[in-house]
Amino acid sequence: MGRVTERRKVIRIRDGAVGSRPDTLVAEEPLEIRLNGKPLAITMRTPGDDFALAAGFLVSEGVLGAREDLQNIVYCAGATVDGSNTYNVVDVVTAPGVVLPDITLERNVYTTSSCGLCGKASLDAVRTTARWPIDDTRGGTADPVRLEPGLLADLPDRLREAQKVFDRTGGLHAAALFSEDGELLDVREDVGRHNAVDKLVGRALQNGDLPLSRSVLLVSGRASFELAQKAVMAGIPVLAAVSAPSSLAVDLAAETGLTLVGFLRGASMNVYAGEHRIALRAAAAQG
Amino acid sequence: MGRVTERRKVIRIRDGAVGSRPDTLVAEEPLEIRLNGKPLAITMRTPGDDFALAAGFLVSEGVLGAREDLQNIVYCAGATVDGSNTYNVVDVVTAPGVVLPDITLERNVYTTSSCGLCGKASLDAVRTTARWPIDDTRGGTADPVRLEPGLLADLPDRLREAQKVFDRTGGLHAAALFSEDGELLDVREDVGRHNAVDKLVGRALQNGDLPLSRSVLLVSGRASFELAQKAVMAGIPVLAAVSAPSSLAVDLAAETGLTLVGFLRGASMNVYAGEHRIALRAAAAQG
Repeated sequence: MGRVTERRKVIRIRDGAVGSRPDTLVAEEPLEIRLNGKPLAITMRTPGDDFALAAGFLVSEGVLGAREDLQNIVYCAGATVDGSNTYNVVDVVTAPGVVLPDITLERNVYTTSSCGLCGKASLDAVRTTARWPIDDTRGGTADPVRLEPGLLADLPDRLREAQKVFDRTGGLHAAALFSEDGELLDVREDVGRHNAVDKLVGRALQNGDLPLSRSVLLVSGRASFELAQKAVMAGIPVLAAVSAPSSLAVDLAAETGLTLVGFLRGASMNVYAGEHRIALRAAAAQG
Repeated sequence: MGRVTERRKVIRIRDGAVGSRPDTLVAEEPLEIRLNGKPLAITMRTPGDDFALAAGFLVSEGVLGAREDLQNIVYCAGATVDGSNTYNVVDVVTAPGVVLPDITLERNVYTTSSCGLCGKASLDAVRTTARWPIDDTRGGTADPVRLEPGLLADLPDRLREAQKVFDRTGGLHAAALFSEDGELLDVREDVGRHNAVDKLVGRALQNGDLPLSRSVLLVSGRASFELAQKAVMAGIPVLAAVSAPSSLAVDLAAETGLTLVGFLRGASMNVYAGEHRIALRAAAAQG
């Protein structure tokens, strides 16, 4: 399955000089995720870790919460006339007794008859489907994760060091899981930022590591609602992003108790929610 | 509708100093796009230009090709119990006689019984639904767009100058249309890169400017399959990206005749396909 990168000829123009050479590109292919044989979603992804991607997607959707919920994941053969396998269709079979929520074909489709479609409905849907409360004041842990700013500041460099493909293609989003002590637990890359997180979370589910209640999720780009949702659904208490968060991501973090850090660059960062998990010096915090 | 940004309190940590202040965030809200009253897709977007976003999305899906295909676009009222309008549901009504292709709820769902799900099927689907051939050797224009590298090199700076929100939030993707002479025609921003392009294309449809066969599309990030698809479906002959393209974007460009430029930074760029539209000096091109 090692189709993470592909080679193509490229014409390079550098300060007026023109040359031709092979270039390494990030691979992108569609993946269809089926649930118990029924098509559920299609995502454009970088091939590899497909089972983890499918499992993580279903954690985000509230279908899977533990390794025991999963009976089997297989590539569907016979998708072509000659019966060969494209390795682009994955079927996730749930264990007997797993109750399937009412999910639709489309991601983030949260409509309720009482509210119409709005950000509030999206927030409500995550709050009601989340299995593991991460708000320490409401059912979360009595021993909250607490991080020194300096520990957080070191994480982006360590993510970049761990990225195997990024330097070659420049086309991959990365996501990494760190322990509360700053130990790198896992890193995944994908052409889609949400896929990279799904791959991390799915791998954790397969390893029996959910909820990830002592972990920090770092993403190489921005923090959208969708990424904050994925953190909450996996029980991750801290989401840190190298770039900016959106308004709805901040709202979701504030409502669920997620710590949301943005613009994590060098010794600087912004804390948008859940600041009790960041070890701020009390005097300075009044500044 | 001016909800492009929202204000939230943020704790800033700068080299050990901690302070609190209001911060400007890019707004993110769900938008449901209905086609003739039937729900078709939901996207997380930055509010504003919603009608253009819906129209552009339907150009990409092969539903709309000209202003005359469009009868009306309205916000759906009554989505809530009290009948108030969330301004998050848009209904696109097509003109009588517009034939609706067989589109599904999910973006980029291109499956054929003969091929299964694979990149090839995705490419085929775009090629067969595209209304305006952009391959100059096969039905395209007899007078191809031809661009000096220096003209292309100037575009990213001009996009950044034109961006109204980016500098304040850091959370927006931008897309711009330029004429073949380098004139900035339009610029749109959104929390989702595909939405920014949809807003550009939809606005062009509303103005009766499709196909955009003498235009250059510049995107602030990477060039995925989805963005290349949107360029092709709008008849745009040149897609330039500040960052890396994916393998499938390059394949689609090569197959449709789209000129695809990546890593457009300063006087440097990579040309991945359609190099006949770039004015390379012939001698140097052998280098």
